Amino acid sequence: MTSPLSDLFTVDPLDLALRDTLQHLIDTKTKPPGSLGRLEALALQLGLIQRGTQVRVERPVMIVFAGDHGIAAEGVSPYPQAVTAQMVANFLAGGAAINAFSGVAGLTLEIVNAGVATPLPPSNALVDVPVARGTRNFARERAMTRDEALAALEAGAARVRHHAALGTNVIGFGEMGIANTSAAACLMSRLCDVPIDECVGRGTGLDDAGLAKKRAVLAAALALHADAREPLDVLAAFGGFEIAMMAGAFLQAARSRMTILVDGFIATSALLVAHALAPNVREYCVFAHASNEAGHRRMLEYFGARELLALDLRLGEGTGAALAVPLLRAAAAFVNEMASFEQAGVDDRASGDQPRHA
Amino acid sequence: MTSPLSDLFTVDPLDLALRDTLQHLIDTKTKPPGSLGRLEALALQLGLIQRGTQVRVERPVMIVFAGDHGIAAEGVSPYPQAVTAQMVANFLAGGAAINAFSGVAGLTLEIVNAGVATPLPPSNALVDVPVARGTRNFARERAMTRDEALAALEAGAARVRHHAALGTNVIGFGEMGIANTSAAACLMSRLCDVPIDECVGRGTGLDDAGLAKKRAVLAAALALHADAREPLDVLAAFGGFEIAMMAGAFLQAARSRMTILVDGFIATSALLVAHALAPNVREYCVFAHASNEAGHRRMLEYFGARELLALDLRLGEGTGAALAVPLLRAAAAFVNEMASFEQAGVDDRASGDQPRHA
Repeated sequence: MTSPLSDLFTVDPLDLALRDTLQHLIDTKTKPPGSLGRLEALALQLGLIQRGTQVRVERPVMIVFAGDHGIAAEGVSPYPQAVTAQMVANFLAGGAAINAFSGVAGLTLEIVNAGVATPLPPSNALVDVPVARGTRNFARERAMTRDEALAALEAGAARVRHHAALGTNVIGFGEMGIANTSAAACLMSRLCDVPIDECVGRGTGLDDAGLAKKRAVLAAALALHADAREPLDVLAAFGGFEIAMMAGAFLQAARSRMTILVDGFIATSALLVAHALAPNVREYCVFAHASNEAGHRRMLEYFGARELLALDLRLGEGTGAALAVPLLRAAAAFVNEMASFEQAGVDDRASGDQPRHA
Repeated sequence: MTSPLSDLFTVDPLDLALRDTLQHLIDTKTKPPGSLGRLEALALQLGLIQRGTQVRVERPVMIVFAGDHGIAAEGVSPYPQAVTAQMVANFLAGGAAINAFSGVAGLTLEIVNAGVATPLPPSNALVDVPVARGTRNFARERAMTRDEALAALEAGAARVRHHAALGTNVIGFGEMGIANTSAAACLMSRLCDVPIDECVGRGTGLDDAGLAKKRAVLAAALALHADAREPLDVLAAFGGFEIAMMAGAFLQAARSRMTILVDGFIATSALLVAHALAPNVREYCVFAHASNEAGHRRMLEYFGARELLALDLRLGEGTGAALAVPLLRAAAAFVNEMASFEQAGVDDRASGDQPRHA
């Protein structure tokens, strides 16, 4: 397993050869320079990732990874663990928010059982590749073994390779897992070296007492796993199987030169793991939205990133990432379809025949 | 003309009869309450406007109104006036940003000659209903007569009635007019009672000297038309024909119970006029984006509005409004397509069988 995984951890930086060509193409479109704001930077990033002056959104995919967390036994979520499996059934039946938003965005939606605790009914629509039936309770022991972490990374990467072979060049990742904000908060605290209290939020809706308890549980868990410092050890200590698969998916997506839509708090915690393993993965990422879950904005600062959408979402499932797909299409459309000043016969400022300001 | 226009100035407030029903529908979807953030408020607004629990985006339309401004002779824009007509030709040929974004958003795009100074080539695709060949120079005299203002309001309303008859229930307005940030700044200063320096920005790209000159020209014009206080007089003194048509279109769209996507600085100045004539128009508006043009954020504050998108656009043409259409579709999709906790058999917090926090 060592050989393919060492490959997985190797992500090339963006090839900047086309940078000036793309910038000139963007600057000569029939609009005042810079007037399309952040869509211009987005178009440049897409062009660099795709290594072309025609920018495309091809067969965009959303993969939702689901997994359960042993830490749920500590009462860190207001929802029972069975909800993870119930929501997977809801995804498969088409009744969740990510189903609705994938339809609007034209996304192919895939649901992956990364490690749900409750048995799932058989379904042809489910990619059923669990590492185990939920992680162990990281308040007492590591959530998973290093081998389980590696297996999950590889399984996530395999899903991306599947879609790469079908022509996908834009991908987003979502998740479902009761108590996974606890896992994400610990990953963030350790990997970003931020005090746990700044990483913990209300998740799906804890009250004040629940929030205080969650903080205490996670602070103790971080102390228990004080030895976990190396990225794979951090992932094994606190991670969920869905988070580990997402981390592997991030790495493979960058390797496959896809543009990656980063969703909210949990997805970004998986990116923290991927980034610790291969920092260049960040160059392929578009940060879709800022979650209302405490800690996500701090994660965005860690990456020096600014979100495209600020809609106060805090649902997960990849919903924020899905909503950003039309902005990628708009960036591609203006690069591909807009006329230049010269093509359209529109006077640029320099060619104007009326008085201009000195 | 008095009778139809007094009708135009009558806009009903939203009918709140369905408010509780809609809120319950939104709250019982399979997601933590409130976790879809601002899309939940958007869904509620759409339902109230449409008076239904199925929310639809039907035949969405973008109308771009183009007009020229006599004030351009004062050198307040870095582009020559001929660019207005050149850009209309570019719209008709499909080469502008709003063409690209309308395609992505599935918008029917209509271009209206509201009063362009330069002769336009004949085109079946152009709605050619100019009030005159550009406004007069409001540094010296009123931009238009009160009758011209009324004619423009009515012409804008007529375009909306046309689309209402075809089934449109979502509409946005864009504009093209060299020097129209000067008109918009004066409308804002007078209607919002804000000092002109806080309303003036660089438009399509003025340098410091150009900005200082623009401020001086507009301050003098506001003093010259100190008597223009009543909304129609303010519109006649400073407005462009494209702005006046947009104002009439806003009013009619609310009367036709459409959801209205508000674009940037110029479009919002037209809304200021419409709002001064019929304050209830605001309840039908979705503020699509915050323009980078100075003054627009202050306009949003005036309306107590928060933008959906913060992409640093400053182009006009309706581009910001077009980019927000997918968010309306997402709001509609989650209301129409998501299962409730009961339908999906997902445990709500209250029905969970595991320990919860007190």
